[in-house]
Amino acid sequence: MSRNIVLCSYRLKKFNLLNKKTPNKLKILNDPIYGFIQIPNSLIFDIIEHPYFQRLRRITQMGFSNLVYPGANHTRFHHAIGCMHLMQKAIGVLRFKQVAISKEEENALCIAILLHDIGHGAFSHALENSIVSGISHEEISLKFMKKLNEEFNGELTLAIEIFEGKNSRKFLYQLISSQLDIDRLDYLKRDSFYTGVTEGNISSDRLIAMMNVKDDELVIEQKGIYSVEKFLIARRLMYWQVYLHKTGLVAENILVNVLRRAKELAEKGVELYASSALHYFLYNQINKQNFTEKTLEMFSKLDDYDVLSAIKEWVYHKDEVLSLLSKMIVDRNLLRIEIQQENFTESYIQKKREKAIKKLNIKETEVDYFVFHQEIKNQAYNLKAPIYILNKKGKLKDISKASDQLNLQALTNPVIKHFICYPK
Amino acid sequence: MSRNIVLCSYRLKKFNLLNKKTPNKLKILNDPIYGFIQIPNSLIFDIIEHPYFQRLRRITQMGFSNLVYPGANHTRFHHAIGCMHLMQKAIGVLRFKQVAISKEEENALCIAILLHDIGHGAFSHALENSIVSGISHEEISLKFMKKLNEEFNGELTLAIEIFEGKNSRKFLYQLISSQLDIDRLDYLKRDSFYTGVTEGNISSDRLIAMMNVKDDELVIEQKGIYSVEKFLIARRLMYWQVYLHKTGLVAENILVNVLRRAKELAEKGVELYASSALHYFLYNQINKQNFTEKTLEMFSKLDDYDVLSAIKEWVYHKDEVLSLLSKMIVDRNLLRIEIQQENFTESYIQKKREKAIKKLNIKETEVDYFVFHQEIKNQAYNLKAPIYILNKKGKLKDISKASDQLNLQALTNPVIKHFICYPK
Amino acid sequence: MSRNIVLCSYRLKKFNLLNKKTPNKLKILNDPIYGFIQIPNSLIFDIIEHPYFQRLRRITQMGFSNLVYPGANHTRFHHAIGCMHLMQKAIGVLRFKQVAISKEEENALCIAILLHDIGHGAFSHALENSIVSGISHEEISLKFMKKLNEEFNGELTLAIEIFEGKNSRKFLYQLISSQLDIDRLDYLKRDSFYTGVTEGNISSDRLIAMMNVKDDELVIEQKGIYSVEKFLIARRLMYWQVYLHKTGLVAENILVNVLRRAKELAEKGVELYASSALHYFLYNQINKQNFTEKTLEMFSKLDDYDVLSAIKEWVYHKDEVLSLLSKMIVDRNLLRIEIQQENFTESYIQKKREKAIKKLNIKETEVDYFVFHQEIKNQAYNLKAPIYILNKKGKLKDISKASDQLNLQALTNPVIKHFICYPK
Amino acid sequence: MSRNIVLCSYRLKKFNLLNKKTPNKLKILNDPIYGFIQIPNSLIFDIIEHPYFQRLRRITQMGFSNLVYPGANHTRFHHAIGCMHLMQKAIGVLRFKQVAISKEEENALCIAILLHDIGHGAFSHALENSIVSGISHEEISLKFMKKLNEEFNGELTLAIEIFEGKNSRKFLYQLISSQLDIDRLDYLKRDSFYTGVTEGNISSDRLIAMMNVKDDELVIEQKGIYSVEKFLIARRLMYWQVYLHKTGLVAENILVNVLRRAKELAEKGVELYASSALHYFLYNQINKQNFTEKTLEMFSKLDDYDVLSAIKEWVYHKDEVLSLLSKMIVDRNLLRIEIQQENFTESYIQKKREKAIKKLNIKETEVDYFVFHQEIKNQAYNLKAPIYILNKKGKLKDISKASDQLNLQALTNPVIKHFICYPK
Repeated sequence: MSRNIVLCSYRLKKFNLLNKKTPNKLKILNDPIYGFIQIPNSLIFDIIEHPYFQRLRRITQMGFSNLVYPGANHTRFHHAIGCMHLMQKAIGVLRFKQVAISKEEENALCIAILLHDIGHGAFSHALENSIVSGISHEEISLKFMKKLNEEFNGELTLAIEIFEGKNSRKFLYQLISSQLDIDRLDYLKRDSFYTGVTEGNISSDRLIAMMNVKDDELVIEQKGIYSVEKFLIARRLMYWQVYLHKTGLVAENILVNVLRRAKELAEKGVELYASSALHYFLYNQINKQNFTEKTLEMFSKLDDYDVLSAIKEWVYHKDEVLSLLSKMIVDRNLLRIEIQQENFTESYIQKKREKAIKKLNIKETEVDYFVFHQEIKNQAYNLKAPIYILNKKGKLKDISKASDQLNLQALTNPVIKHFICYPK
Repeated sequence: MSRNIVLCSYRLKKFNLLNKKTPNKLKILNDPIYGFIQIPNSLIFDIIEHPYFQRLRRITQMGFSNLVYPGANHTRFHHAIGCMHLMQKAIGVLRFKQVAISKEEENALCIAILLHDIGHGAFSHALENSIVSGISHEEISLKFMKKLNEEFNGELTLAIEIFEGKNSRKFLYQLISSQLDIDRLDYLKRDSFYTGVTEGNISSDRLIAMMNVKDDELVIEQKGIYSVEKFLIARRLMYWQVYLHKTGLVAENILVNVLRRAKELAEKGVELYASSALHYFLYNQINKQNFTEKTLEMFSKLDDYDVLSAIKEWVYHKDEVLSLLSKMIVDRNLLRIEIQQENFTESYIQKKREKAIKKLNIKETEVDYFVFHQEIKNQAYNLKAPIYILNKKGKLKDISKASDQLNLQALTNPVIKHFICYPK
Repeated sequence: MSRNIVLCSYRLKKFNLLNKKTPNKLKILNDPIYGFIQIPNSLIFDIIEHPYFQRLRRITQMGFSNLVYPGANHTRFHHAIGCMHLMQKAIGVLRFKQVAISKEEENALCIAILLHDIGHGAFSHALENSIVSGISHEEISLKFMKKLNEEFNGELTLAIEIFEGKNSRKFLYQLISSQLDIDRLDYLKRDSFYTGVTEGNISSDRLIAMMNVKDDELVIEQKGIYSVEKFLIARRLMYWQVYLHKTGLVAENILVNVLRRAKELAEKGVELYASSALHYFLYNQINKQNFTEKTLEMFSKLDDYDVLSAIKEWVYHKDEVLSLLSKMIVDRNLLRIEIQQENFTESYIQKKREKAIKKLNIKETEVDYFVFHQEIKNQAYNLKAPIYILNKKGKLKDISKASDQLNLQALTNPVIKHFICYPK
Repeated sequence: MSRNIVLCSYRLKKFNLLNKKTPNKLKILNDPIYGFIQIPNSLIFDIIEHPYFQRLRRITQMGFSNLVYPGANHTRFHHAIGCMHLMQKAIGVLRFKQVAISKEEENALCIAILLHDIGHGAFSHALENSIVSGISHEEISLKFMKKLNEEFNGELTLAIEIFEGKNSRKFLYQLISSQLDIDRLDYLKRDSFYTGVTEGNISSDRLIAMMNVKDDELVIEQKGIYSVEKFLIARRLMYWQVYLHKTGLVAENILVNVLRRAKELAEKGVELYASSALHYFLYNQINKQNFTEKTLEMFSKLDDYDVLSAIKEWVYHKDEVLSLLSKMIVDRNLLRIEIQQENFTESYIQKKREKAIKKLNIKETEVDYFVFHQEIKNQAYNLKAPIYILNKKGKLKDISKASDQLNLQALTNPVIKHFICYPK
């Protein structure tokens, strides 16, 4: 069916339906968080209208977190638009402080932040570990940008340069990717808003108002020090309370297992209900080396809807492992999960495995799908690319040393926890 | 494939995975609007856990409105939970005012409002007009309730009685369904919140605080009169600015046409990519008369994911009509729409049809899929089941007469507009 | 003591304490409603720092409404700053739509809106009716502006021209004063926010986004029509539910009576505790004719603190009328109030008077202080200076005719109510 | 004049104006933060109506912080009402978790929290250090409670017992006063809301939902650990960014000096404009020993209005020190302030003193009013009365040890800073 995709694209182009853009339409978008967001120019408007970008409407930002926080259905589309909005604010603040940013750089920053996550697959991280292998979503984002750059006659060149960290002005890259980048300023605020976990709320406005540039380094002015502390703590809280919430964690791991099992069956030639895009990734082994232009095209068709609709159907597949795992997701009737600071003992794991084999009447080779353990890790602050505080004398200081009391150095130690899942 | 569904359900039951409930789990849900929502008891907890109800997680409240308002991805699941929350508040207020409401009635009200929309199909209203015919979502809701009542050993009997308007205490029914019911109090607030159209925001809290019961009639106390006015105006605003926004309108109509076309092809025996549930409704003519228990089971498997994932695949179908329409939705590259107060003239419509035939190179019999016109109508206030204001002397007055100035009677005239869609 | 004021001002000037401004200080202000508000330039910064403007920190926006809505303690200072913020937004929107607004006009608009209310007295309207007579707060605002214009070497000239409606570009004036001016856009939002009456909330952002200029007339684009309707209804709601709330109404009227009584006693030479500024207005009859520069200086010293602290002391004054009225305010133990649509009958009023005389043991000549009746009136929309809607063909239409259904014409009829106050 | 107060109170009682309460009035209060707040019963309603409590309407919660954050004009009245609201929620949560709390205890908790701050003087802490000496506001609160207990025939006895920490159930006291008491849960949320410093916002709701009681100790359940961390960090942020903001700090210190100078003058017999209540505290030396019932009565008359209106008048006093200091406050033209971690050197201080003497032309004995230095200190977490975390095995752990990573122990070290003020 995949050949059909190429043919159809051609046909649609013929009818002028694919790329025809209405001028002056939809220049303003509503955002429950920021109010109105203005799209600054027609190039950016056209990028947003492109099917590659429209696909982000069908990828949720937080994967299965909506199984815990039912309000968390916001999409990567909205997040990317929000980032563009904050980027414009940041540029305004920096210019007000006499940091020279050209019109071209402004545009490039907006485009780079808009597209920084375009390579995310359906249900984001889950897919990175099961469908494609050995290629990160950042690398795929870059492939998308390069493809768009062709279509838009090189107008994305500077954006790509910044995104790749190849531009000589370091702070431009830091706005896109660092421990206090625009991405984090939007997603923490947005995720906190939609989940209703108000404690994760950060003051993006204040953090941006405190930004400055010193020796090409993006820095925070001294009086913003408490806001940075607060930001780091809020992020840490969101990690443990939301992103690594045990119900979301178990759901995501079951999803990975569903896809692993499906791929295993596909390799054996078993037939599986799947959209053509999902079919492509199930029946081919895709990695960095063989990620061709066609792969990119197929990737651009794949979103949450392909995956979840397939899983819904697999509930009725004759393979019991696939069926049971799929059912768990659809009915939100998940495995039990335990989390603790220490590793689980071998004997404890073995006991759980034996119980599961008996209870589900499965083979020993299949038990890994239902009983598994893993470690999770979060490092609240990373010393390697520090957040710099600009003191009143114009000196830079790593936030972990600038803070007068709070032992931020402690935040640099990664927290490691262990979890085990098994049938109820 | 549908037989498989039944078999699988059996198998899952055997493994004790279907109905096993963990006690004391998830008694509290986060809501960005109301904060914490408490689930009052284990019966209601079990209803929420039931696959019928969990399906509402996969049906958006506002269909394609997210194409206009990207924040509007909230689900019927969350709306139903929100309704339950407001219902508990309303019961608290009424009891405080000495209106006797028994524990059983409280429970029944919560269940009835929780399930009032469970019969909604994927993309809600669109499906009512294309997939099934001659049966409303309320009737399907009732079928679900009766089915659940069997499973829960009659514990939903009073809820059903109230939902059907058969209970002698009229106000119980009015809390579920009237011009100022709990449903509206939640959805206006929720839709306004998620779209970011702050003007549609209503004070559910204040309206509930002003509720009372007089002669078994749900009424609003006199000092709430401005809040009711405001509520009616906000609802009117939401209709024209959001629910009937032209982009959402055209998308929804294209969706209906996609499904109509798919059904037409199905009748001719053309093969279509579809989940088993969608397949069932495409290849069978379902109406009130032949809506069996099996139909209900199939309906309970059908959600937004079945429909949108099929449409994504149909983009590559060899039928050009189906392919073009599907592509429009997926890439958000829609037909043009014009809205006006008067009817469109026959000659204008004819001109658009001829242009479309030529441009898209389609047959005369196919042009209806791309050029269509219709009227839309909204009545802000309906005199037949009035909202009563309780004045200080204990008398009831229809709000349209109680308001001292605002000519609310004008709101009883339905506003009618006409739209036409055609290719750009 | 008033001579002392002049001497002191001199002394303070000598010490360079009066007008010395620190550069670069406090360029950003926090607003719970809008987030950060930036002060655009040092002229405006200096105006804000001027004692005339700082006085607005000590005048509440809503007078005694905080007796009903305890959160409503926001000041005229904050309102004026908020107006300036919205004005900057409006200017941005209009320029985006190609309406030419020069740098000087921008500055003048910001200054004019910042100072539009600077002539408000303590407890606002109450004082207009009791302390000074025959001069409106707008006239006093103008006097302040002219005085500041002298101090700032003519830099306020254009602002004054616009404020007086003498500038040839009509829309500049309309931004300052019309049925949809920036003043209303801020105060409705602000008052709704601080009172917690969420229904009065309006979308200032959206209304501003819909602004345009046609033939020098400030207009709203067609798609903003529902927002204007909503704005008019919200304003009407705020009037009846908040601004004319009966408790606030009775408190304000008692305040007027307190001041009337104090003035009556002052005329008789009775000694009264009062600050020098309040003393000046109690013991002199100030009207338009004798409102000298010195009067203005005295006026600039008078705020809520002078009035309320005097009233607190008057509780212990030997004049029983003054004492009783003062006590009512301080302890929030007010007169009873009745409101109705019809006039109160003479006999009803007489009965209340007689009861009061007996109960309070007062003279017949004093009963007017405790028993009084009055009419209140609100016109939700005024046809004389209409809000114009700009339709898609570029034609202007009065909103009351442009609205497709809501009978806005009804809003042009003033609503009149009657109230009577008497001792409990 | 003070004798007059007693006489007048008598006269007002005679007219039945003082204590007459209208039944069923104002049972609901609006709060922009929590929505509606219900007053639970008529005893509490009567306490709120009492002049002692009404006085809190005239005392701002945050003193001169509104000079920095212009939205921060909320009163102690509103804070106390908000506390009562949260207390009701906390009681609901604890009862839901099977902690027995009797109707009497519920009532006592509400009263105790409502009155916990009633002893605060005008501009709160400033007055404690200048007007009265050697008596804390908690001690004065207790005096007020005991007086009210007499008036209300002993109905406050249990509330007083809990407030004094004499009740055997420790957690009742901890709800009123501990490191995670209801007071803090409201004021952090409220101050953050009104200042617009969104980062200080805490989730009172979640913290309350996580409360439990174990061995009579108020504890937080394990999964609330991140919320407690966040709460401690937010509180720390509010301290340094808001409560100890340098502009507020200098204003408060000038206020203390104004009052110190006034008192000094009073002792010398110099005449000062002052209300009778302020007069009493200026011309008498009040301490713990001579704080009589009459003192309490006088204290109950003293609020922000007495103090600020006097200062406004003192601008024109012939004593130059008093005049200059007063003027600084009124026009918000303050002393310069420097803050640093180290102590200021003697020579630096001496230099500033000499400059000030010369610049202001004052005597050496007066320079302390204009040049002064001090240390400020904040301890984010106190080990002595720890916040306990209840782990899943039912064990209690001090939060500073329970936190898995964040070095909360560091928060136990008090942060000390030094500031110096001197003329610009």
